[in-house]
Amino acid sequence: MAEWQHLPHGRHILLDVWGVSAERLNDLEGMQQAMLGAAVAAGATVVDSTFHRFPVQWLSGVVVLAESHISVHTFPEHGYAAFDVFTCGSRVDPEMACRHLVQAVQAEDRYVRRFLRGHPEGIEEQAVTSARVEALAP
Amino acid sequence: MAEWQHLPHGRHILLDVWGVSAERLNDLEGMQQAMLGAAVAAGATVVDSTFHRFPVQWLSGVVVLAESHISVHTFPEHGYAAFDVFTCGSRVDPEMACRHLVQAVQAEDRYVRRFLRGHPEGIEEQAVTSARVEALAP
Repeated sequence: MAEWQHLPHGRHILLDVWGVSAERLNDLEGMQQAMLGAAVAAGATVVDSTFHRFPVQWLSGVVVLAESHISVHTFPEHGYAAFDVFTCGSRVDPEMACRHLVQAVQAEDRYVRRFLRGHPEGIEEQAVTSARVEALAP
Repeated sequence: MAEWQHLPHGRHILLDVWGVSAERLNDLEGMQQAMLGAAVAAGATVVDSTFHRFPVQWLSGVVVLAESHISVHTFPEHGYAAFDVFTCGSRVDPEMACRHLVQAVQAEDRYVRRFLRGHPEGIEEQAVTSARVEALAP
């Protein structure tokens, strides 16, 4: 194997949010703004983005970054959205993107799972360093 | 909170692969084919896709599915690629997508982390049901 220590840190966050209004979870333009704002908050460079509203409800969106991606899939009928924020390199902060997203959609609750990508040594130990489901700090 | 048991199962797989040739990890058309093939293998419906080759090396690609998404970011200098496969609903099988991807890029090693999305009850227990870094079965 190659020398993994030279691999840029990939940090991947799975962010589940609940208690979001159905209106917000069906608002394509609002979600685009939230996602692009999250990229800016992280200090990332946007390469492309694609957003879709499905016939009855549900949004899907992906922002491709020079440093990886941010995605969202919404389930308005459950007040729920699944985000993931994946960034490579130490210059960009995926935590800031998550914070922006939680605030932008005004989620009541969130669940965060954080992972390193690309480091086989110690990857099991680093697999989960997550918060439990918790109320959003005021 | 709403009745989470009615939320369609979201299954999210983080797939790290190593030992892939740099040529393959820089082959945009080949990667597009691998990713779209993975969507078909999963039984998913492709809504959109976007792929980018960065100036010196590295590819990024996302296939947006009616059932969520598949993404890839490659690091040819390390023989490494980071995939994620996220599918909602029980009709689509993200494991089949992963299997297709590992075979398509001819990875020597892989590491798989599997997660449920959108289920606060028991989410900690379900957080990691992963294989260790392992050689690809022949």
